[in-house]
Amino acid sequence: MCSFFLCSYNEELLWYSGTINFGFKSKEDVNMASEKKDIILTGDRPTGPLHLGHYVGSLENRIILQEKYKQYVMLADLQALTDNAGNPAKVTNNVLQVALDYLAVGIDPQKTTCFIQSMIPQLGEITMYYLNLVTVSRLERNPTVKSEIKERGFEKSIPAGFLTYPVSQAADITFVKATLVPVGEDQKPMVEQTNEIVRAFNRTYNTDVLVEAKAIIPKVSRLSGIDGKDKMSKSLGNAIYLSDSPDDISKKVMSMYTDPDHIRVEDPGKIEGNAVFTYLDVFDSDKKKVEELKNHYKKGGLGDVKVKRYLIDVLESFLVPIRKRREEFAKDPAQVMDILFKGTKETEIVAQQTLSEIKEAMGINYKK
Amino acid sequence: MCSFFLCSYNEELLWYSGTINFGFKSKEDVNMASEKKDIILTGDRPTGPLHLGHYVGSLENRIILQEKYKQYVMLADLQALTDNAGNPAKVTNNVLQVALDYLAVGIDPQKTTCFIQSMIPQLGEITMYYLNLVTVSRLERNPTVKSEIKERGFEKSIPAGFLTYPVSQAADITFVKATLVPVGEDQKPMVEQTNEIVRAFNRTYNTDVLVEAKAIIPKVSRLSGIDGKDKMSKSLGNAIYLSDSPDDISKKVMSMYTDPDHIRVEDPGKIEGNAVFTYLDVFDSDKKKVEELKNHYKKGGLGDVKVKRYLIDVLESFLVPIRKRREEFAKDPAQVMDILFKGTKETEIVAQQTLSEIKEAMGINYKK
Repeated sequence: MCSFFLCSYNEELLWYSGTINFGFKSKEDVNMASEKKDIILTGDRPTGPLHLGHYVGSLENRIILQEKYKQYVMLADLQALTDNAGNPAKVTNNVLQVALDYLAVGIDPQKTTCFIQSMIPQLGEITMYYLNLVTVSRLERNPTVKSEIKERGFEKSIPAGFLTYPVSQAADITFVKATLVPVGEDQKPMVEQTNEIVRAFNRTYNTDVLVEAKAIIPKVSRLSGIDGKDKMSKSLGNAIYLSDSPDDISKKVMSMYTDPDHIRVEDPGKIEGNAVFTYLDVFDSDKKKVEELKNHYKKGGLGDVKVKRYLIDVLESFLVPIRKRREEFAKDPAQVMDILFKGTKETEIVAQQTLSEIKEAMGINYKK
Repeated sequence: MCSFFLCSYNEELLWYSGTINFGFKSKEDVNMASEKKDIILTGDRPTGPLHLGHYVGSLENRIILQEKYKQYVMLADLQALTDNAGNPAKVTNNVLQVALDYLAVGIDPQKTTCFIQSMIPQLGEITMYYLNLVTVSRLERNPTVKSEIKERGFEKSIPAGFLTYPVSQAADITFVKATLVPVGEDQKPMVEQTNEIVRAFNRTYNTDVLVEAKAIIPKVSRLSGIDGKDKMSKSLGNAIYLSDSPDDISKKVMSMYTDPDHIRVEDPGKIEGNAVFTYLDVFDSDKKKVEELKNHYKKGGLGDVKVKRYLIDVLESFLVPIRKRREEFAKDPAQVMDILFKGTKETEIVAQQTLSEIKEAMGINYKK
């Protein structure tokens, strides 16, 4: 079941995870001449600035992927509203912040088309047509939605927009005719839901207008929080943001979860579940040095503070160029928004084309 | 609780139901000078040609209402797709037929704006925003939707678009800022649902952009079928269409349900539930003549065939001018479609304005 693209992608990731991209030079190594046959749709709900978890789980892959594929990155403000209807400012205010994070890490608007979801008017129309092709009970069975409903404590008062957001997401994926969708393991059912709608549409209207997408799941998709918990997230308050100041970084690393039984410097310490070493594994390109530190720590005689100070240096040398680029872009927010508007305009042309094909396939064309 | 508009409207209907509009002359009597303060949204799912039941239940009111109010009549093709996704041609092919019926009965494009729902792209967007303001369980409790789901035998496989169509209908009603919505008694919960969304929106975004609508329920809202059953409908096969030929009319009237116990001409007959007399009450302006026939029938000595022949004459004199106008318009379908396109274009400007206000109220305006 492993397609060419999936396999080559995974190998790439394997290679990539061993060479963290300080200063964004290694992307030059990627074969620029390869054909951009596949189309990628990915994106973020703009509900807060992006953190190291986002970097490891998706941003670093996007920087690679933009060299080989046509890549769309969507600022999913509409989707964010499905569970933030009461606070749109939380969403709208973060669009610029997330865009700054994108540019800061090296998402290149010359290679990746970034767009704002709510500015693609065709998405609502496409969603309306798809809503007729999926049943309520199917949406209620969607594992991702089910667990998200539980997480959010919606229970009986689920907003209709939240239950139906997989259908809106199907519109997102299909209107650019995405063939590859990078997702976390937990989001895989969303791609399956999309493909069901694609098949239902093509079957019902006897067409091949819509294309199915493959979920691509990165090998390292999740970074633990500074508290050692499974997932870094804004709501858990355990995140290091790409936009954090050196002072924030220092404080956060110093408060990091290590080995609770490692009380005196001379005590032997544990590496497993020790967030400091998890981060070193991910962010330090000097693997030999990390190995030495681990051995020393396990044996005893290496204090937490010393390892943490080293991690601060490692994170800083990773974050300094990101921070610098972010500050540079942040000086002219209007220019950043213009980048998004330009991408949005380009994307809208694609959306209009797909919507026309959809309506044509359904025979809804009164002007013909 | 009775507002000025509702009361005056009902009085009008009362007056109107006593003076059926043969040849569309009586509408001239309506005070043309009255202010067009209120806005009406009404429409039909274009799934078949319109029949006498539509005329009595809504079309004749529209002809009156267009003189006093700004009236939008929507060809609800999107809504019709929510339970006809597998057969869009059934919907699209009937748009022209329904438009011909409108023009034939005297809906005047100079006074009433007719538009095609699927050609208003803003409706999908507005629906997406509203979907976040209503819960799934609230939609499941909607009495109209509940009974329609039962009627259609959807049970567990309800299309998501069908469950959520009241939200889409709220978009229809609110984007033109309709204040009056003529509906049958059974559709009243839809207007309530819309008003709940209006209040939720205005409350959530601290605005008064959206306006609540009043359901206006005509006194005569339902015409029985030719089989005497409660409701004339295409699916029950008991309808007389506005586009029926004289031969169709003759055959249908001759097959009409009367009094099953009225076997010989000399037998006394029953008037109650006798469809022939129901139709005479509605369509014969010569009330004295109808009274005479009823008395004769009740006494005995008046045969069904004779009354039916009389009804055929009455219906024919009602339908002849409608049929004539219909044939006239049908000669140039492109011109009829152009009338719809013109109305749609005008309506889209209103839709864009309302959508802008909605997004402004929510603070979704990145270009500001």
